[in-house]
Amino acid sequence: MDGKSSSNTAGKPIRCRAAIARKAGEPLVIEEVIVAPPNTGEVRIKIICTSLCHTDITIWRLEVPPAIFPTILGHEAVGVVESVGEGVHEVVEGDTVIPTFVAECGECTDCLSKKSNLCTKYPFSLSPWMRDETSRFTDANGETLYHFMYVSSFSEYTVVEIAHITKIDPAIPASRACLLGCGVSTGVGAACKTAKVEAESTVAIFGLGAIGLAVAEGARLCGAKRIIGIDVNQDKCEIGKKFGVTDFVNSRNIGDKCVSQVIIEMTGEGADYCFECVGLTSLVHEAYASSRKGWGKTVVVGLENPSATFTLSTFELLYSGKSIMGSFFGGVKPKTDIHVLGKRYMDKELQLDEFVTHEVDFEDINKAFDLLLEGKSLRCVIWMNK
Amino acid sequence: MDGKSSSNTAGKPIRCRAAIARKAGEPLVIEEVIVAPPNTGEVRIKIICTSLCHTDITIWRLEVPPAIFPTILGHEAVGVVESVGEGVHEVVEGDTVIPTFVAECGECTDCLSKKSNLCTKYPFSLSPWMRDETSRFTDANGETLYHFMYVSSFSEYTVVEIAHITKIDPAIPASRACLLGCGVSTGVGAACKTAKVEAESTVAIFGLGAIGLAVAEGARLCGAKRIIGIDVNQDKCEIGKKFGVTDFVNSRNIGDKCVSQVIIEMTGEGADYCFECVGLTSLVHEAYASSRKGWGKTVVVGLENPSATFTLSTFELLYSGKSIMGSFFGGVKPKTDIHVLGKRYMDKELQLDEFVTHEVDFEDINKAFDLLLEGKSLRCVIWMNK
Ligand SMILES: [Zn+2]
Ligand SMILES: [Zn+2]
Ligand SMILES: [Zn+2]
Ligand SMILES: [Zn+2]
Repeated sequence: MDGKSSSNTAGKPIRCRAAIARKAGEPLVIEEVIVAPPNTGEVRIKIICTSLCHTDITIWRLEVPPAIFPTILGHEAVGVVESVGEGVHEVVEGDTVIPTFVAECGECTDCLSKKSNLCTKYPFSLSPWMRDETSRFTDANGETLYHFMYVSSFSEYTVVEIAHITKIDPAIPASRACLLGCGVSTGVGAACKTAKVEAESTVAIFGLGAIGLAVAEGARLCGAKRIIGIDVNQDKCEIGKKFGVTDFVNSRNIGDKCVSQVIIEMTGEGADYCFECVGLTSLVHEAYASSRKGWGKTVVVGLENPSATFTLSTFELLYSGKSIMGSFFGGVKPKTDIHVLGKRYMDKELQLDEFVTHEVDFEDINKAFDLLLEGKSLRCVIWMNK
Repeated sequence: MDGKSSSNTAGKPIRCRAAIARKAGEPLVIEEVIVAPPNTGEVRIKIICTSLCHTDITIWRLEVPPAIFPTILGHEAVGVVESVGEGVHEVVEGDTVIPTFVAECGECTDCLSKKSNLCTKYPFSLSPWMRDETSRFTDANGETLYHFMYVSSFSEYTVVEIAHITKIDPAIPASRACLLGCGVSTGVGAACKTAKVEAESTVAIFGLGAIGLAVAEGARLCGAKRIIGIDVNQDKCEIGKKFGVTDFVNSRNIGDKCVSQVIIEMTGEGADYCFECVGLTSLVHEAYASSRKGWGKTVVVGLENPSATFTLSTFELLYSGKSIMGSFFGGVKPKTDIHVLGKRYMDKELQLDEFVTHEVDFEDINKAFDLLLEGKSLRCVIWMNK
């Protein structure tokens, strides 16, 4: 067998439906596409369901690179292995898997280190190709369709490198498992792995979208005593409570004060950990200013504009004892950590259910975009064939 | 006794010699001054010797606040307690002590935490006064002289709050003990306490002055495998070897490359820890760029210009897994940590001797300034009464 699958479709192209982004900002179009069989080291997956993440929207509405069209977006999903290419032994046909935009080769210095999740062999990029610079997707007219973040889950079938594939317990409901492919892992990991939030500590979270709420969930799991959520949307006050947020600050409702003043007044000295989950430079500064002298950590999780920068005073850095760092996919190593998160969900420790505010059929994928753009959904799960 | 001293001079003003900085950048003048007895919570110290630190020079040549004249500079010293004020029980007459610009009240949240050395009760500032906003120094004409960094060690006698006083083993030679008052503790602490350098790691140090060399010494103590020193002065290549520097880069001698390119070529992926000990914005950027993706820590130790800033890309922070932090006095808590460093010197683990390149009598204090300004000395020890 040499790792090869014995499914009926193995080795042959598959015709199926995919939601194609043909032009920046225009509704996706569901069309028939041809998905080539997996090459060496690749896996073809039948997607069960996929959820929509803010990064899909960021690229979808971008008119310049790294956005490139026509493309198949989507990177938060769960599926079942349909067939595997040469040399793939880690999964077999029928395995339930989560594809992730972060790879884990398991062999490079980073993968072997506990401190990094930035696989050197398969570095992250927004390349629109598979690693060999080709595509597995063509449309009905034979036109090549671009990949997205090595996942492209807005398709009934997709092809993903094995380094980007994590096996997951099939008992986890698919609409929950898919969340572990990006947003929830990023937020929970930012708290538990990047910041290493200590028990009894105080946490401030700037932006209570799905990622910010997942940070809250992670901070709660770490035993944080106080979790302050900051958002412009008053509805997040009630929503936050479901994820462990203990205090809410509506940043549109603090008069002349800046958020950091409010946080410092609330906490006495500032929060032990501050997470910036929106991706605005001004909020990076506010987060840093809100963090406690002596040991405050500011963790940047959000990125709205890839060319954004922030400026700090060297004097303040030196005399404050504060540190600042980024969190890429929450410091999570997919093959090492995701199944642990899945188990914590099954053990009723990690909360996933409340993230799923909406579910739609594949045909209605554009509704998922509308809901997220309007701020109405945390996660909208898109079912491929319900 | 109520903590009060029984020395002959106790409770009375002392007339002695001090080196006064009367004008920015002009040679210090040794004059007779009157040192008032210590108030409640204060200690009067007879300075044995003091060394010159770069910060003394920074303030000495500054024509604007926080510099203010006439003042008694000096903040790296060792002395003997002459008398104590009301309520001081921690030290008695005759104790050998190191005064430090960092305080440790032992009671505030920061002092009680292992993570901070930024005492909240006695915060650091460049205030030219004692904590009660008065001075203990007057000159022969009755003019008030300003304090400096709560120490003012360029005087035969000085008055310091007990929170700024650390007892030290009198068996440690004074010309070595004084170094623990600022530079060596800052550098060793930056490596061992702030960065927590791991064994077998790679370290890059930007600037091999006394602080940079003390970082090397700290990294060596932590078991770093490779310690790369970067400086514009080729002499530092040989000097560095005495402090554990294994590789030297003369940054004036790398052609069109920037330092970070050289460091990345030397190390493959960058250094695990980068220390910026010069205080230049451009070097903060180079240090950050030289640090290894995934886990690289950049520690800012130097500060040349108090209004300096640095700018980072949010994208790079997010996707690099790197962090950046400052190190104030090396994260060292004076009363908790300095005596440990003293013991490590006596146990021949910590190297201090090679820092002392020159020794002068108090009369020749301006020579110490010249030597440091010309880059000829690491530490010049100034003996008050040899
Ligand atoms: Zn790897
Ligand atoms: Zn995502
Ligand atoms: Zn304190
Ligand atoms: Zn100093």
